This record gives sequence, C-alpha cells and structure tokens, in this order.
Amino acid sequence: MTHVYDDPAAFKDDVLAGFALAYPDHVQRVPDASGFVRAGGPLEGKVGLVIGGGAGHYPSYNGVIGTGFADAAVLGGLFSSPSAEQVYRVCRAADGGAGVVMGFGNYAGDRLNFGVAADRLRAEGIDTRIVYVTDDIASAPPAEQGDRRGIAGTFTVYKIAGAASEAGLDLDGVERVMRAANAATFSFGVAFDGCTMPGAGEPLFHVERGRMDFGLGIHGEPGITSDAWMPAPDLAAKLVETVLAERPADADGRAAVLVNGLGATKYDELFVLFGLVAPLLEQAGVRLVRPEVGELVTSLDMAGCSLSVTWLDDELETFWTAPADTPAFRRGTPATSTRFTTHRQVSSESARTTVAEATEESRAAAEVARRALAALSATVEEHKDELGRLDAVAADGDHGIGMSRGALAATEAADATAAQGGGVQSVLAAAGSAFGDKAGGTSGILWGLLLDRTGQQLGNTDAVTGDALAHAVRSAADQLKEFSGADLGDKTMLDALFPFVDALVGAVDAGEPVGTAWPAAARTATEAARETAALRPRVGRARPLAERSVGTPDPGAVSLALIVTAVGDVLADAPVRS
Amino acid sequence: MTHVYDDPAAFKDDVLAGFALAYPDHVQRVPDASGFVRAGGPLEGKVGLVIGGGAGHYPSYNGVIGTGFADAAVLGGLFSSPSAEQVYRVCRAADGGAGVVMGFGNYAGDRLNFGVAADRLRAEGIDTRIVYVTDDIASAPPAEQGDRRGIAGTFTVYKIAGAASEAGLDLDGVERVMRAANAATFSFGVAFDGCTMPGAGEPLFHVERGRMDFGLGIHGEPGITSDAWMPAPDLAAKLVETVLAERPADADGRAAVLVNGLGATKYDELFVLFGLVAPLLEQAGVRLVRPEVGELVTSLDMAGCSLSVTWLDDELETFWTAPADTPAFRRGTPATSTRFTTHRQVSSESARTTVAEATEESRAAAEVARRALAALSATVEEHKDELGRLDAVAADGDHGIGMSRGALAATEAADATAAQGGGVQSVLAAAGSAFGDKAGGTSGILWGLLLDRTGQQLGNTDAVTGDALAHAVRSAADQLKEFSGADLGDKTMLDALFPFVDALVGAVDAGEPVGTAWPAAARTATEAARETAALRPRVGRARPLAERSVGTPDPGAVSLALIVTAVGDVLADAPVRS
Repeated sequence: MTHVYDDPAAFKDDVLAGFALAYPDHVQRVPDASGFVRAGGPLEGKVGLVIGGGAGHYPSYNGVIGTGFADAAVLGGLFSSPSAEQVYRVCRAADGGAGVVMGFGNYAGDRLNFGVAADRLRAEGIDTRIVYVTDDIASAPPAEQGDRRGIAGTFTVYKIAGAASEAGLDLDGVERVMRAANAATFSFGVAFDGCTMPGAGEPLFHVERGRMDFGLGIHGEPGITSDAWMPAPDLAAKLVETVLAERPADADGRAAVLVNGLGATKYDELFVLFGLVAPLLEQAGVRLVRPEVGELVTSLDMAGCSLSVTWLDDELETFWTAPADTPAFRRGTPATSTRFTTHRQVSSESARTTVAEATEESRAAAEVARRALAALSATVEEHKDELGRLDAVAADGDHGIGMSRGALAATEAADATAAQGGGVQSVLAAAGSAFGDKAGGTSGILWGLLLDRTGQQLGNTDAVTGDALAHAVRSAADQLKEFSGADLGDKTMLDALFPFVDALVGAVDAGEPVGTAWPAAARTATEAARETAALRPRVGRARPLAERSVGTPDPGAVSLALIVTAVGDVLADAPVRS
Repeated sequence: MTHVYDDPAAFKDDVLAGFALAYPDHVQRVPDASGFVRAGGPLEGKVGLVIGGGAGHYPSYNGVIGTGFADAAVLGGLFSSPSAEQVYRVCRAADGGAGVVMGFGNYAGDRLNFGVAADRLRAEGIDTRIVYVTDDIASAPPAEQGDRRGIAGTFTVYKIAGAASEAGLDLDGVERVMRAANAATFSFGVAFDGCTMPGAGEPLFHVERGRMDFGLGIHGEPGITSDAWMPAPDLAAKLVETVLAERPADADGRAAVLVNGLGATKYDELFVLFGLVAPLLEQAGVRLVRPEVGELVTSLDMAGCSLSVTWLDDELETFWTAPADTPAFRRGTPATSTRFTTHRQVSSESARTTVAEATEESRAAAEVARRALAALSATVEEHKDELGRLDAVAADGDHGIGMSRGALAATEAADATAAQGGGVQSVLAAAGSAFGDKAGGTSGILWGLLLDRTGQQLGNTDAVTGDALAHAVRSAADQLKEFSGADLGDKTMLDALFPFVDALVGAVDAGEPVGTAWPAAARTATEAARETAALRPRVGRARPLAERSVGTPDPGAVSLALIVTAVGDVLADAPVRS
C-alpha cells in the first residue's frame, strides 16, 4: 500500500524533486524533463548509457546513475513508459559526443517510445543504439528469448554496460558488450502479493493466502503459474532449477547472481533465500562472482523476489566486478570517473515552435478538429474507469488514466495552436505531440502518431473533404500498423481501427457523405472492439499472461471505438464536404 | 507479511547464514555466536564498537559492519534482545585491545543483557562502556530524554561513533562522542501498518484504513497517537514541527537528517517525503549535512517512516561525514581502514566447564530441581499461546515463545549437568545460563538469573531443607529486583514474585513444611499476577504505550505464577525436609 503521497497525478514529479534534493553530488535534473544526468553534465568523449522505464522501480533507474553505471535515466509515470519526447530530451542532455546507448526492459511501450526518440536523435546526428533486456524466463520459451520481458536482470545488464562505457569502449563496443550481457542473463521470480498505486485502495492484484505466483512481472502484473506456498528450501530449489535449465552450453560456470526483492519481501527473507540458493548453485558447478542480495529492481511495495543469473566470460566478469559509485549502489572505490574528466554543459535547448501559415479553409478544418478532440477527451473521461478495469485484467490498469491525461493535454495543445492561427495539420501535430508526451506508455505514442500522421496528410492549405479525411485516416492507420509491429488479430487497437477505416473508406469511395459514413463506420468499430474479447494478444505481452485476457475485449480497441463514435457525432454536424 | 522462511524458530540463524555467504569481504561470523566481526578479525589497538539488538532491522545492525562504522554486531531473535552470553562472545571476538563500546537502543531486555555481558567483560579485563540510544521523541517527555526508546536515530549515533573509533579516538573519546551524538538526536515517526512475523498469519498490529499512527516503534509496536490519513505535505509538516520543537538551544543549525523507511514504505514515497521535509527544515534555518533517504533501520515489512535529526557541531559533523564502507552503507572512498592495519585472530575460545564436585544430598536436591524444571517447561508449553496474547497487548507478543525456548534449553542443560553428577547449584547454574541464552530478551535474562542465584544460595554440598529453599529464593528475588531496576508496582514479574516469596518465607519461618507452604504461596502469586491488570508499567516501556496494557495482567507475572504453581506440585511430593 502506498501511503505517502500528495496528488497521485503528480506522484512521479514529487518523487523526482525529492530525489534531486537528496543526491546533488551524484545527479542533476535535466531541464524540463523527467530524468537526470550525472552531476556536472555528460562526460566529453564518453558513450552515454541512458536507461529508463516507468517509475516505481527504485533504485532502478535513477538510483544507479554515476561512475561505472548509467550516465542518465529517464522515468515515465508509475509503471508506464516515458514518452518519446522525454526520452529524446534526456538523451540529448546525456550525449557526450560519442553516441548514446539506450537500455530498457522489453515492453511494447518502451520499445515504441525509445524507438521514436532514437530515430529523432539519429536524424540530429547523434548515433544511437538500442538494447532492450529480455531476462524473464517465464515470459516466453527459450526459442523466443528475444520476446521475453525485462525484470531484475536489467540491473546486471546495465551495470556491465556502464562499466564498459566507463572503460572507454566505443559505441559499437558498448552495444556489443551489453547485448552479450543480456543474452547471458536469465531471471525467474515469485510473487506473494501485489502493490498498490498511490491513491488506490486496493493492490493491482492479490495472491491468495497460502499460495505463491511464479513468473512475476515488475509492473503490478501477477505471476504466470500459481503454486501452494512452499518453505524457503523448496522455493530456492525451484528458482535455481528453473534458471539453471537454461544454462548456455558455453558457460564455464562463472556467474553474476542477484537475489532481488520487489519491495515488501525484506532483507532477512532475501538472506534466507540466498543462504539456500548459493550452495545449490555451487553444487551445480556455478562460481558466484560478487553476488548481490537486496532491492535492486522494485515494484513499489510488491511482495516477491527473484533470482537472476548472468553467465560471465572474462570480459563480462571484468565489467561486472568493476567499481561503481551511484546513489544506491557502490562497488569498489571509484569516487569519480578517472578516464573521462571533462563535463559538457547539459543541453537545455527548448525548441521554439512557430505555428505554420494556414489557409482559411484549413483553419476551418482545424476548428472541427478541435471539437473532435474535445469530444475525444469527453468520452475518454466518461469511460476512464471502465477502460482501467479492462486493462487491469492482464496489465496494470492504467489505460484509462493515461488516455485521460493524454486527451486533456491534446485538447489544450490544439486550442493553443488554433488560437495562433494554426491549420488542421498544425493543430493535429500539436495535439499528437502533447498526447504522446503526457499519456506516456504504448497508447500515448500510438494515439500521438495517429493524430500527427492524419494531420500530415491533411496539410495546412487545402479544405478538408470527406474523401481527404477518410484517406488521411487510412494512411495514418497504415503507418501506425507498420510502426507498432503488430498484426491484425494481435488484440490491439488495430483490430478496431482497421474495420473502422475499411468501412469508412469503402463508404466514402462509394459516394456516401462522411457525416453519415463515419458514424456507420464507428458502429463497425464498436462491434469489432467487442469481438477482440475472443483474441489473445501476441505483441508486447508475456504469453501466459495473455491467456488471462481471453474473454475480455482489448482496452485499446474499446477506447478507439468510443473515440471514433464520439468524433462521429461531431462530424455529423460539421460542414465537411464530400 | 513474511513469506520466505523455513522453520520460523530457526529464522534468525538462516538469515545469518545467508548474510555470511553474501558478504565474505566485509564480515566473518563469530564462532558459536549470533554475530559478526569485520572480515579479518578485530583491528589491533582500535576501540571496538559493538552494536546490536533484535533481528529484523536490517541493515541495522550487521549490515553496517565495516571501515568507519561498527566493528561487530550481535543479533537476538526477531525483535528480541540478544542474550548476555551472545553479547559477551561477540564482544570478546571484537576486542582489539583498546576496549569495547556497546551500542544498542534503550530497551529493558537489551539493557539487562548487554549490562550482564559488560560486567563479565570488565571482570575479564576488557574495559567496556555502554551507550544506549534514546532518540524517540514520542516515547517520553523532554525532561526524561534518557528514558526514551531508540529508533532510527541509532543509525546516526552508531555512524558517528564508528567514525570516531576509526579516527583513532581512545575509549573515553569514543564514549564521549557517542553520548554527544545521542544527546543531539531526535526522531519522530509514523506507522501505516504492522509487520508479520515468519509463520504468523496476521501482522502484530493493524492501523485502521484511512488513519496513521504517530510515534511508531520499531519492534512491531503500534504508534502512540492515531490521526486521520493526511497528504504528504501535512505529514512532512507534522514530522518537522515535532522534531524541531526539541531543537537544543545551542544548535547552530547544522544537522544530519534521515528519512527512514520501515520496510514497506518504499523509496518513491521516501523521496516524496524528503522533497517536502528538506525545504521545511531549511526554512527553519537548518543546514542539512549529507542527509540520508532510505531503509536504514527497518522493522521487517512494517509500513511507516520516520524523520531523525542529529544536531551537529564541528566534531560530530566530521565524524558524520567521514567515509564508511559496509555491506549496506557506503560513503566516500574508504576501501579499508588506513589507521588500523593489523588484524587480531578472532577469539573463539569456548570455555570448557567441568561440573563441580557435589555431595549425595545435593545431587538428590538436583534431582528435585530437574523435576521442577520439567514441570516449569511443561506449564510454559501449555500456556505459550495465552502468554503470547497477553504480551501482544502492549509489546511484540513473543513472551510465550521466548519462555518456551528458554525452558526447553534449561531442562536439557539441567539433565546434562545432572548426568555428570552435578549438585543442585551446578544444575541450576547450567539451567539458568541456558535459559538466558536461548530465551533471549528480558524474561530470558531475569529467569536465568533467578535460577542461577537460587542455585548459588543452595550450593553443591548441603542437603536442601525447606528453610534453605525458601530463603534461597528470597535472596535470588532480592538480587533480581536490584538488577532489573524495577520497583514493586511497575507491572513486572516482581509483582507476583514478591507476594509469593513473602508468603513462602512467612509460612516456612512459622514452621510449615515447604510441601504445603509453596503451593499456598503459589496461590498468592496467582492472585497477585491477576491484580497486575490494574497496574501500568513504568520500566522499559514507552509511557503512552504502557496505557494500553492497563486492564491486562503482566505476562511476566502470569508466567511466574504458572511456574511456581507447577513447581509446587513437584515439591508437594518431593522429599524436602522442613
């Protein structure tokens, strides 16, 4: 249960403010961003390791910024990906001129947001590499290691990558070492009870008394298989056996070992477990190299723990055992970087955007877009709790809150841009950017793109006809599908979006006015969203967890249907020519 | 809730075993003892700082052994004082030849056990000083600062004392600095929910939903005053206001500040709180020197947090900011001690005791003593749960478990000594020593002394008459009263012991056989124990908490009455001459 908070919506900001006050010798805040770089600024000539993800995992990620570890960390809302905009800003601030390596756990939202930020950084000349961590054995079979989630093993992977960068490896070298560390890292965990978000009265899930859930997630997801409570020796044996089953053929036995506590499973318990795990590993021929026992990757006050093993070769061992000096983790005696000594100023350039010229016709279309966005926001607000409940079936239940935050920001940005005389492209671009930044997570960036790309098609010059609108939405949907990497049938918003787009374009192409074609297509979307209940997600979700969502419609598809329905009401009355 | 454990009775031992495996570079186990010294052994010529208390507070106390901090730590059972025997062994192992300073929180059990160990160490030529910490504002008014409990401020006091010792101060110097640090330290905390002992189904207490308990304890005691839940800014203001109210007149504003989490109140929450506390303190003219935010003194998975302020002068600031290198806490770059370099071998001499010669008559009395101890153990076992429930009203509910563990060990030790031909003094000495060591806590050492001192009066030579027995018990009771520092009416076992002794000695002196006088006196004890319900404890218990026990008899008095009743049944049949 989370007890100490003020406004739950501002929780992350309050956390960051307190952290900045506590560790001024280690970190400095990136201006206008949810993140930190090393105190003094990025080191000239050093590869920047930027790690991040949702808040709620301390000491991951801001707690391990410092010599021999991360150069910067970017945080999203609780258990929610930072937005692409935030990732971009923090990476720019962390760039020392030798390129940036991004590290995050393998989750759809993080992949999308870090991916968009990486494209933008590369376009601006900062060579950027992405390594996402896939250590969670429970989340996919061995043949699909690359699809696994990142859990506590992220700690070891980032530590090793940070030491490689500190040692002076170049961008290729740091990326190579980090990929090797990830490929050698295997974790398996157990949950005893869920965590409670600030302001919530109940945990995200409960584990039944007298039972334990194996294959925990670190975002409030319950485990994947349930078992009766077992005494510590049996638990240790099960964790060790599961992790050792994936021992690579070429491992010589050296291993970095973590026993990680999720938050409410305390130190004494972790020592009991380690006291049983260590001899079992040794009996199996493992030589434990600088093992760690403690809270390294938490999940608020979730009760649970995990075992992580990273199989080491000479190079990985050197970087794992290298000194580190961060707020929450220290090893050896590395007061400051010895190799890199000159700090760069933290870049805080805030891009001033001027609103592009627009025609009268496009400004009229922008007015319709504003009303559509207001309707979008109203329907999201109205159905916020319902969307949260749908999302909580197999995820962390924040879909409603995130969409609400994004929609509100989008309408504000649209109003401001329209007030400056912006056309429909400018208004939708501003709305999309604000939606992505404030909603965060997967839905945030997808809706941000959908708005932005629709606007790009419509432009700031031409009048918006029904035909233009339908084809703009179709084009944006196509781009979204390509970008998200999802297929139809993967139980995502696409499963409502494409039936909608097909119906809309078909009707408009057949000569029907958009004012009636859109509401009809929206009904198709509503039906399609309902039918997603029968599907099982295949993208960005641990497979066994996905089973839980069968029987419940996809919250992203449902919100899409709600939104196009609300927008349909606006268009029915709007002066859109066919 | 504690989930990871095997045999709850062996929990502490399992914890210590795992900890020893995790930190071989920092600590080594003291042979045959529940404690650790620095790896390599004590440092020649250095004052040894030995800290300790019950288990369940990690990183206190074993987590802060190392350069610039503690030299050794001794742990009792969960939330229960280590026995005098354990304290003695760990201090002997930690002695570097320059004397030992003991540090512990101000609790009756710790004061008794560390006190007895200190006497023994001094008798063996090791100069030993005691500094107990009294930082908890909530537990007694300012005029009685010396009666306050020790909570999270123990961390700061030990850190400062450890640095003073590392700097080479002599025994007087370390003691002086540590007393100054304690006098300058003030803490105030809030509890949100209780912790659950391994194997228990329910927490030691609950805080009602929507409320918070101020003045928390760190041993599963609930808070002292209850309030409605308040948002973080109000909570911060209340903590700051309460602690600043005791700002000493001579404080110049510099302060070591801790925001400590009890276990389940997590890092993000602690940063939120610190982000509010720090500006409030600064507005009040406080200059925060190297503040700490984290889990420093925990209470298993209790939900709660506290604010501690230690007002610094130049000397205290120097020692507070000095480097430290321990398993759980590091500051600066102090790989190893630079001032002290030669390690002593850890002393592991185990005193071989040979059983003293005894007469036939004393061996016969020893046989009766053995049967009495068996009866003692049986009645404790039978009433274990009831004693636990009585204890849980205002304390941690372990009275029954502790007494059971002690009684079992006492009967085993008595049997072994009797088998070697020991007389009644030897048998009761062995029983008393085992009772104190295995029961731990306050009751352990008091019952250990009662058995031992009764045996001393009876000797190994003379036959035991009813008169001798009654006066031996009276003498032991008198010594116990002096040792414990308690008065009659303080709601302790003495309130049943003295009515019992008075009745017993009166009847025996009047010529009544002990076989009938003892059972009659036992009935007096039972009545007296019942009447302790009306009393309020005055020793070793925070005053407001003491109020809670009014209406419930003292568990120590109740167990005394149960035991003398059971022993009476043995004596009624025993061949004890008048």
